[in-house]
Amino acid sequence: MDKNQNSHPQAEPDTLSRRRFLGTSAMAGLAGATLGLAGCNKGEHGPTPAQSGPAKAAAAEAGDMHEIKPGQLDEYYGLWSGGHSGDVRVLGLPSGRQIKRIPVFTPDPLTGWGTTNESKAIMGTKPDGTPLYHVGDTHHVHGSYADGTYDGKYAWVNDKLNARLGRLRLDIFECDKIVDIPNVQGFHGIFPDKRDPVDAKINRTTRVFCGAEFSIPLPNNGKTSDDPTTYHSLFTCVDAESMEVRWQVLIDGNCDLVATSYDGAFAATNQYNTEMGVHYQDMMSAEKDACLFFHVARIEEAVKAGKFKTYGDSKVPVVDGTKEANKDPKTALTAYVPVPKNPHGVNASPDGKYFICAGKLSPTTTTIDLVKMHEWFDGKLDNINKTIVAEVEVGLGPLHTAFDGRGYAYTTLFLDSQVVKWSIDAAIKFYAGDKNSKYVVDRIDVHYQPGHINASMSETKEADGKYLNVGCKFSKDRFLPVGPLHPENEQLIDISGEKMRLIREDPAWPEPHDFIIFRRDIIKAKQVFELDDFPLATKKAELSGVERKGNKVTVRIASYAPQYQLQEFKIKKGDEVTIIVTNLDNVEDLTHGFGIEKYDIQFIVNPQETKSVTFKADKVGVFWIYCTHFCHALHLEMRSRMIVEA
Amino acid sequence: MDKNQNSHPQAEPDTLSRRRFLGTSAMAGLAGATLGLAGCNKGEHGPTPAQSGPAKAAAAEAGDMHEIKPGQLDEYYGLWSGGHSGDVRVLGLPSGRQIKRIPVFTPDPLTGWGTTNESKAIMGTKPDGTPLYHVGDTHHVHGSYADGTYDGKYAWVNDKLNARLGRLRLDIFECDKIVDIPNVQGFHGIFPDKRDPVDAKINRTTRVFCGAEFSIPLPNNGKTSDDPTTYHSLFTCVDAESMEVRWQVLIDGNCDLVATSYDGAFAATNQYNTEMGVHYQDMMSAEKDACLFFHVARIEEAVKAGKFKTYGDSKVPVVDGTKEANKDPKTALTAYVPVPKNPHGVNASPDGKYFICAGKLSPTTTTIDLVKMHEWFDGKLDNINKTIVAEVEVGLGPLHTAFDGRGYAYTTLFLDSQVVKWSIDAAIKFYAGDKNSKYVVDRIDVHYQPGHINASMSETKEADGKYLNVGCKFSKDRFLPVGPLHPENEQLIDISGEKMRLIREDPAWPEPHDFIIFRRDIIKAKQVFELDDFPLATKKAELSGVERKGNKVTVRIASYAPQYQLQEFKIKKGDEVTIIVTNLDNVEDLTHGFGIEKYDIQFIVNPQETKSVTFKADKVGVFWIYCTHFCHALHLEMRSRMIVEA
Repeated sequence: MDKNQNSHPQAEPDTLSRRRFLGTSAMAGLAGATLGLAGCNKGEHGPTPAQSGPAKAAAAEAGDMHEIKPGQLDEYYGLWSGGHSGDVRVLGLPSGRQIKRIPVFTPDPLTGWGTTNESKAIMGTKPDGTPLYHVGDTHHVHGSYADGTYDGKYAWVNDKLNARLGRLRLDIFECDKIVDIPNVQGFHGIFPDKRDPVDAKINRTTRVFCGAEFSIPLPNNGKTSDDPTTYHSLFTCVDAESMEVRWQVLIDGNCDLVATSYDGAFAATNQYNTEMGVHYQDMMSAEKDACLFFHVARIEEAVKAGKFKTYGDSKVPVVDGTKEANKDPKTALTAYVPVPKNPHGVNASPDGKYFICAGKLSPTTTTIDLVKMHEWFDGKLDNINKTIVAEVEVGLGPLHTAFDGRGYAYTTLFLDSQVVKWSIDAAIKFYAGDKNSKYVVDRIDVHYQPGHINASMSETKEADGKYLNVGCKFSKDRFLPVGPLHPENEQLIDISGEKMRLIREDPAWPEPHDFIIFRRDIIKAKQVFELDDFPLATKKAELSGVERKGNKVTVRIASYAPQYQLQEFKIKKGDEVTIIVTNLDNVEDLTHGFGIEKYDIQFIVNPQETKSVTFKADKVGVFWIYCTHFCHALHLEMRSRMIVEA
Repeated sequence: MDKNQNSHPQAEPDTLSRRRFLGTSAMAGLAGATLGLAGCNKGEHGPTPAQSGPAKAAAAEAGDMHEIKPGQLDEYYGLWSGGHSGDVRVLGLPSGRQIKRIPVFTPDPLTGWGTTNESKAIMGTKPDGTPLYHVGDTHHVHGSYADGTYDGKYAWVNDKLNARLGRLRLDIFECDKIVDIPNVQGFHGIFPDKRDPVDAKINRTTRVFCGAEFSIPLPNNGKTSDDPTTYHSLFTCVDAESMEVRWQVLIDGNCDLVATSYDGAFAATNQYNTEMGVHYQDMMSAEKDACLFFHVARIEEAVKAGKFKTYGDSKVPVVDGTKEANKDPKTALTAYVPVPKNPHGVNASPDGKYFICAGKLSPTTTTIDLVKMHEWFDGKLDNINKTIVAEVEVGLGPLHTAFDGRGYAYTTLFLDSQVVKWSIDAAIKFYAGDKNSKYVVDRIDVHYQPGHINASMSETKEADGKYLNVGCKFSKDRFLPVGPLHPENEQLIDISGEKMRLIREDPAWPEPHDFIIFRRDIIKAKQVFELDDFPLATKKAELSGVERKGNKVTVRIASYAPQYQLQEFKIKKGDEVTIIVTNLDNVEDLTHGFGIEKYDIQFIVNPQETKSVTFKADKVGVFWIYCTHFCHALHLEMRSRMIVEA
């Protein structure tokens, strides 16, 4: 270990006390020796209150040059996963304003996601018509690409809890498709491809790659559970347009995060449990895990050639990507690059040259050269370790890496509670033997325990090096106390200069995992829907009315502020009722709500949109319907009556 | 109309164009003549873009003196209703940071609200064990009082959609009780009392008053629906501690917002539909509606004396508060004070002297003197109109009023999209005949169409006149576009000086209605639960295990970062499984999650907390359980396995 590199240039007496504070919580129960904590500063002298020490220093440094004042618009959008909230959030940056919450995998009472027939069709339902799942866990959100940068068309997000992939339309910022990934659990990392590996004309996203973190018996039919050799994890490719699962790859070990190359050739995933341990203590025995590469073109050739099997009820072709079956690099579908212990993140540098793995239980980052990776698959490299061009120490608990487009990488250090800025070229020189090459150029304290990190346009060829966001997993004392459940802490750092500068922090409802930040000009948002896009639309107010066929009743209601065009309607107890609401207002921001008292029904209808709901009339009496979304000076008077006769 | 008062001191050419912009949306379909719009400026010349005109001017004015920098804590808490999100939100002010979302009436996938047995017991369930309702609509949130100011113990919030009242504990910022209000729909306004009307020793909140906005047939059993004379609205009193409904009052007309007097004698509600119209167009025919006063002590005497009836299945005593039954002021339970057309809000001034109604469809506010109200109920006033000491024009569409403790009132003007600052004393002088009394002292544009307004400590005797927040119902072009659904806009105004100054704005996920702002020293938050407070707690790691009684299986799992103390357990298909999870970590901010793959189960367990969930094992195979809430460097490795055998 190079002493200069391992020292902390920003270490001040306050930092020492801060270190003690960190040591009391998240690391409880973690053996210091394993993680090299023993090598750290020992001059600890008590916890640091929020208003003193580094926090105070940071506050003093932070200026208002990034403040977005009333009436000003942000420069960047942010798309944030919501974690076990099951949603995605849209932020404006640098203000940190949360502009929208996009319901994806979990019902949303406000929009009616999970209530309306249209949303249930996307979410999937049980035989009784209720949503298949009410909980979800979004981790990674990534946008579609064209020409190596975001095209503003789609974004995708995973559900780790129920192994689903959701797609968001970025013109309306709503989820339009959800697909189940078969044969996997713990579906974690995702990344869209950036161009086609074969057809050079297709320079845009056409596939989304999905990694599964937990191994399960294949098939998972309850017949085997104790035999570790039956446990497997699959890597999955989903079609970006049809959202159907194209193929899967059987692998050794598991998948964590995913990265894709700018030339379309490779997807990769870091593997933290190559031991295939099913118990916590078994997942850390190996000194090396892997960064697993997938040769996309060869996999698709194998599928075409029928070299696959299927599992259980699934018809998805599964090719064999295990080590045993891929010993010859020249025909291999996969390549396992050894990287240090339980790596937690793989990121593609914006120059298209490298994938960088962070070490988690090793204080290192590993830089893999993609030209050499091609050479390996071409059989021109005698040792796969030669694809590694740098493996250098950056600090304790490296997790994820972002880029500024100027050759620097920014890696979160979970245990150090820092971001370290380092030069990729200098790290390569250092690793090649130049021990004078100073690759670490700056460090900054963050508060506390950072997980994901991303910079403006970082994962594109247009990485612009303006803002860096760090998702801190513990906020502790940074915000007013609100009981036992604390928010996360999103910290925004100005990276336009040589030194990083913390400019703001915002609490986040738990728990955003990952996020992307992109220029506002990329988005062409639609502000009003098209009436014709909805087959059920009631196109004129006077077409509102009730139609009965046996005990099936269809109620059509057009709305026009501040009135529903049907001020009351009568149905009978036991009827199966479908209410179709069309918002005829053709004005931006004029959304209506539709709530029925005591009937557990509530949704919104945006301008020129149509939504429907089907339910059984099981209670008799008068039930007021009212507009739940403020629309007009006479919004309170906007009502209808549902009269259910015995 | 006094010309000076009706002119807009801040009107500039830009304001004229802004007015045209406003006119194109929210007021669509609203007859200008009715609302006096015809009297407004006509020199309109096109819409105002966000980055020019008043917005730009406001931005230029806004400084950073209120910025809360990283590491600094806010001065105030805010409690915000979430509207049809069904939640309550906790903000820090002046930063606008949203620190927590409190699930109340709607399930929350993150916390497991609606998933765990404990939360279902609070929310109420159907016979099949699922939550009674999945949607809700919170409007008004108010805190408990002692000595005329907030005591930081409780807050209450209404559900307009399903007529429920929820209580929040302000030490843990969680909902602990929900009660159904019988015989009502459209339960809208709430307010706690401030002291007991009879027992002078009880100088704290013991009752919560609830207004119902929609009239329904009583009883609402489907036998009558068309006869308007059967439609009634009730005013309800709930016990603050037991959360049981104490009594209800049958009234003429309906209830909108609620206010309570500092002496405990009165509750009042503004009435906007004294016409009892069931159709939109019938709700605005009368030129006068009312501010309806309730004499709390007399009502409770009547209940004690058995002078009540009950409706339907409800056992709640209902006293008669109609006009016909309360003609003699000396024995009256209620008093109907005529105020102009469709008033929308009643607020109590912090000096304890006045209730102020805002006009909505009249450009006026009405100030009612509470000393005179006592005189009326004592039979000492010959005309109830003499309780009104001011009724003055303030602008178009007055809705709600806040106070600064220095004698000024701040009223939102929905149609003008402004806040007007006016002197209560000067308004009283003007109304008494002094036409030189200039009561309007300032106006400020807000963006756009403001609804509720509140100031720091405004509704207490400690109103401190520092910050004023305005909930704007339309944000239009103020934030980056995110598709057809726009956020609301919360605008924060510095009111410490003579002129109001807009200092920040934040988008809000629709749609906060009302909010309170209080000093941070009022809250004594609990950061770690007490193990002993949970009867089901597994107090030692080694007590984790599985217990079977027939097909009922209880699984006890203690967690200690980064491990569940049961790394796997086996059950059989068809078992009724109860899993009890206890978080043994005794460290602030160390919350664990508990998610079971494919089993639609996810919840969190805070430090020293115990939660449980009961479900049927209906799928065979291996199902990974994992920690969904980041807890530790080895959080990803924190797992257990549920093995369901055929």
